[in-house]
Amino acid sequence: MDFEKIVMERYATKSFDGKKIPQDKLDKLLELIRHAPSSFNIQPWKIIVISNQEIKEKLSPVSWDQPQIKSSSHLLVFCADSNIYGKIDKLKEAMIESGAKEDQIAGYIQMMKDFEKGLNEEQKLSWTQRQTYLALGNAVNGAKALGFDSCPMEGFNPAEYSKILELPKNIVPTALCTIGYANDQPKPKVRFSKEEVFINI
Amino acid sequence: MDFEKIVMERYATKSFDGKKIPQDKLDKLLELIRHAPSSFNIQPWKIIVISNQEIKEKLSPVSWDQPQIKSSSHLLVFCADSNIYGKIDKLKEAMIESGAKEDQIAGYIQMMKDFEKGLNEEQKLSWTQRQTYLALGNAVNGAKALGFDSCPMEGFNPAEYSKILELPKNIVPTALCTIGYANDQPKPKVRFSKEEVFINI
Repeated sequence: MDFEKIVMERYATKSFDGKKIPQDKLDKLLELIRHAPSSFNIQPWKIIVISNQEIKEKLSPVSWDQPQIKSSSHLLVFCADSNIYGKIDKLKEAMIESGAKEDQIAGYIQMMKDFEKGLNEEQKLSWTQRQTYLALGNAVNGAKALGFDSCPMEGFNPAEYSKILELPKNIVPTALCTIGYANDQPKPKVRFSKEEVFINI
Repeated sequence: MDFEKIVMERYATKSFDGKKIPQDKLDKLLELIRHAPSSFNIQPWKIIVISNQEIKEKLSPVSWDQPQIKSSSHLLVFCADSNIYGKIDKLKEAMIESGAKEDQIAGYIQMMKDFEKGLNEEQKLSWTQRQTYLALGNAVNGAKALGFDSCPMEGFNPAEYSKILELPKNIVPTALCTIGYANDQPKPKVRFSKEEVFINI
């Protein structure tokens, strides 16, 4: 499917039919998410892929009882991993595994460490949360490309999600993406005009 | 082009050949960006599209002199618009223009206003900045889909950008996307393993 068609036809599905997405398609979606870009390629995210209906039922009341949670095939919880320092070490390892020489990447690694040192805890979280939206974008476009539907969602209680999912402190639920097969119809897209959005220089 | 191919072949181009992207392709890219999703569909962004070489030269030193700035066809500055209240009013207008009845959307508008009231200034900025990464994601994937290249960038001085571009206080430069035709070759993608990224429940 053409990317333009994906972007124009994708919509925030409010109700799913409960049918399960086949495993091979789900795996393809996760690969699209995993290959999203991020600043420094730091990939500061952890994504919880929930198909267990009991867990979805538990999460529903702390998600404003929005029907997407229970009727979806899978609920993806996009968490930011605010432990940037840990990610830098892991990225270094992954780069070396991919053939980079330690002395070639030393400057790059140091630059990231200096950047990390300059951020307070709140800034670390905010910066890692931003990056997760690049992965979230691949999820919603990827779902459409693979022939199913999605709804990106922020209407949930992150602290309650952390409790129910027993997440460590650095893994912070940031956005949801429910996926499945739509049981509703898209409405026409409402967007601000080009004149409102862009300034040409 | 298949979305999977777009995601796997897109890469952060470090050097462009200076050739200009034709206007019709640029216009298509801007449409893909404009139709990105955002929380509440609030679209809290302003995107500055810079083709003027003199301005790019001025921005280069406050962008760590990264060669993408000057060698790109266009430099897109993704700004968050932290004036959420103003956006809510504009969204209400746009929804009514698209055929919604004022009383049908009153609850939705009120919900957004209540959400906005609950955020302090820092949270407003952080929340609007996150949303811009959904538009940024459409830019990098869209560029590849349209046959050219891109580089998403955070390495620049937002305060200096604001000064040079004479931006009002609520319009905050958040990320860049340089676009053009690559003059370099992609390196193999380094990503954390599936086991590292996903938790299946």
